[in-house]
Amino acid sequence: MGSQAKVSAARRMQSLAAAAATADILMLAERPDVISFAGGLPDPRVFDMEAIREISDRMLATEGRSALNYGPNPGYPPLRAWIADRMARVEGIPAQREEILITTGALEAFHLICGITLEPGDVVLVGEPTYLVALHVLRCFEARPVPIPLDAEGLRVDLLRETMDRLEREGLRPKFLYCIPSFQNPSGLTLSLERRHRLAELAESRSLTIVEDHAYGELRYEGTKLPALKSLVPGRVVFLHTFSKIFGPGVRLGWAFADREIIRQMALFKIGTDQCSSTLAQRLVLRYGEAGSLDRQVAASIPLYRQKRDRLLAALQQHMPSQCSWTRPEGGFFLWVTLPDGARSTALLERALQEEKVAFVAGPPFFTQGGEGFLRLSFSFVSEEVIDEGVERLAKVLRLERQ
Amino acid sequence: MGSQAKVSAARRMQSLAAAAATADILMLAERPDVISFAGGLPDPRVFDMEAIREISDRMLATEGRSALNYGPNPGYPPLRAWIADRMARVEGIPAQREEILITTGALEAFHLICGITLEPGDVVLVGEPTYLVALHVLRCFEARPVPIPLDAEGLRVDLLRETMDRLEREGLRPKFLYCIPSFQNPSGLTLSLERRHRLAELAESRSLTIVEDHAYGELRYEGTKLPALKSLVPGRVVFLHTFSKIFGPGVRLGWAFADREIIRQMALFKIGTDQCSSTLAQRLVLRYGEAGSLDRQVAASIPLYRQKRDRLLAALQQHMPSQCSWTRPEGGFFLWVTLPDGARSTALLERALQEEKVAFVAGPPFFTQGGEGFLRLSFSFVSEEVIDEGVERLAKVLRLERQ
Repeated sequence: MGSQAKVSAARRMQSLAAAAATADILMLAERPDVISFAGGLPDPRVFDMEAIREISDRMLATEGRSALNYGPNPGYPPLRAWIADRMARVEGIPAQREEILITTGALEAFHLICGITLEPGDVVLVGEPTYLVALHVLRCFEARPVPIPLDAEGLRVDLLRETMDRLEREGLRPKFLYCIPSFQNPSGLTLSLERRHRLAELAESRSLTIVEDHAYGELRYEGTKLPALKSLVPGRVVFLHTFSKIFGPGVRLGWAFADREIIRQMALFKIGTDQCSSTLAQRLVLRYGEAGSLDRQVAASIPLYRQKRDRLLAALQQHMPSQCSWTRPEGGFFLWVTLPDGARSTALLERALQEEKVAFVAGPPFFTQGGEGFLRLSFSFVSEEVIDEGVERLAKVLRLERQ
Repeated sequence: MGSQAKVSAARRMQSLAAAAATADILMLAERPDVISFAGGLPDPRVFDMEAIREISDRMLATEGRSALNYGPNPGYPPLRAWIADRMARVEGIPAQREEILITTGALEAFHLICGITLEPGDVVLVGEPTYLVALHVLRCFEARPVPIPLDAEGLRVDLLRETMDRLEREGLRPKFLYCIPSFQNPSGLTLSLERRHRLAELAESRSLTIVEDHAYGELRYEGTKLPALKSLVPGRVVFLHTFSKIFGPGVRLGWAFADREIIRQMALFKIGTDQCSSTLAQRLVLRYGEAGSLDRQVAASIPLYRQKRDRLLAALQQHMPSQCSWTRPEGGFFLWVTLPDGARSTALLERALQEEKVAFVAGPPFFTQGGEGFLRLSFSFVSEEVIDEGVERLAKVLRLERQ
């Protein structure tokens, strides 16, 4: 047990150090003189403040005393039921209230599924690059993330199968696959329809649990809506979603949609993280949703984000060196730049911040190892008027770097 | 690593099962026909709804778009600064903003301090009986809680010293002591001034970290205010507090007050639990506090809770069998009943719910083992008019049980 403990401490501290580095960068990027493509924040213009004020005040007037008190650990029952209905309406997946757990952001839902499944040393499969905080959580639980590459059609399901075969020969069984099929963070890539079917078949035939992160799934700017993995192979998927991108992250509310027994266990683990999510926030979001305002907000935010994406794509086309390439996301908040051979995004970021006052997130935090050849640009929060200028600055740093 | 993993899984599942049992009881206690002394909820009458509505609407009007977005991971800086000032004003402890971390309830703060310190098998000292969810969290982190008994003056500091000596001989060093010095949950007991000084000395001389839970500390109904351990031995104490009992649990906000380096590490671990606490809730609480409404609410709630406590004490005096005894809390939400020899509170609770429709929390969840001879009564939420009737029912079950 002694040496095990030492391994644990070392790994956790390593992860905290990596998190610290990323946190420092995000803080630098907040300086008002910096044009930042770093954070994945919604554009504040999408918030319908008039409706929110009206609904919030009515809620406080009619149910304020309950909203300020504790609520049931798995979530406010009418909100769970409303989300279950919405899962059917928006994603075409029938759901029951008992299959929905309200969490403090989708991230807490991920923390909880890790909490009930992972032992130190457990293998978890992840698309790579992947959401950097998910890697942080896995390390906090002493799990071993095993990466599966992405290409233009998203997760390489063929390589996933090969990896599972290899792990099986080593006597290792992955606890689950974590993936973001639509408008992936950080790459902006979307898993193709054919791959979704192949992944669903693989999950069924190998009894593989999939943790499907749908954070950006409703924000599609072009192309055809694709079925969630949860709709293709419901019994194998723990589906995570959040109000952060469709309403506002300030309420810190998300949910998990999974089989009752998994939801029951996640709820019990949640007793030890924060007991229950904010009742005030839950009731506000529910009344906003019931009034139709949530659907209106999603509908209104799509053209806004599309325009910002298009402006970023145009600026990249105009300014970036020809040795760079980037993805063209059909939705979500991010696109992913592949740098010229030999460029190192960590050093580039330092230079970009200091010399040109432009920020992005360097590649490495999204990888289990490596990743220096990439960077993530977010177009959701940056002001439209400075997108062109920001990309010009970025291109300048890239050219300087290569001299 | 294999056998280690099995031990982990078994312990965590055991803890989830215990949590499930408690959750089931609390759910039963919510039935409208049950008189419940179970949950530790504030009385909804303490919420100043008029002020909250006004302040909430002004906040949404002036800073709503920021309130709905992500905030900094360690908390909204003006709220951290305001809490630091309030720590000096209310508790007489000088504090800096960087020593305050905003958390999703005090429970998350406890989860975070466990996250950055505990390895599987680590010893944590706890007053016994203790807050049942703290025991749940410790088990989730595979720690080993070692109990220190309480008496009428609170934690037995002499036995704490003896236990530390014994552990030292076994080569074990406790990671910290978790205690609730004022109006303890579940016992209602308060650590005496003399014991506070002895505990502070012991912490200093043995380099013992104390996690001081101050959740109920501001709600004193009689007697003299006692200094927080944090004021006596600041460098050794991680101080946890919450808005749940002084404002409302529905905002799910608490804080930790500790040395900068501990706060920094807790904040990094928080990146992997929920990233940041609700910006909306943080700005609402700050504006409510700045307006003086929080202090007014605390002042107004004290006579209300005192009256409920007095009514419960009078009812116990009148109805309970002479072989029972109970604590007389000087503040907080709870009192603690010692049952006649041979009585078992778990069985008693089942009977109380089924036959007499009265609820409480049985002793065992507050103990590392045993605890059947006790039960916790909360007077904070139950309606004053039914306190007498509720105690009469409880006394009836006790008499039936002993026939």
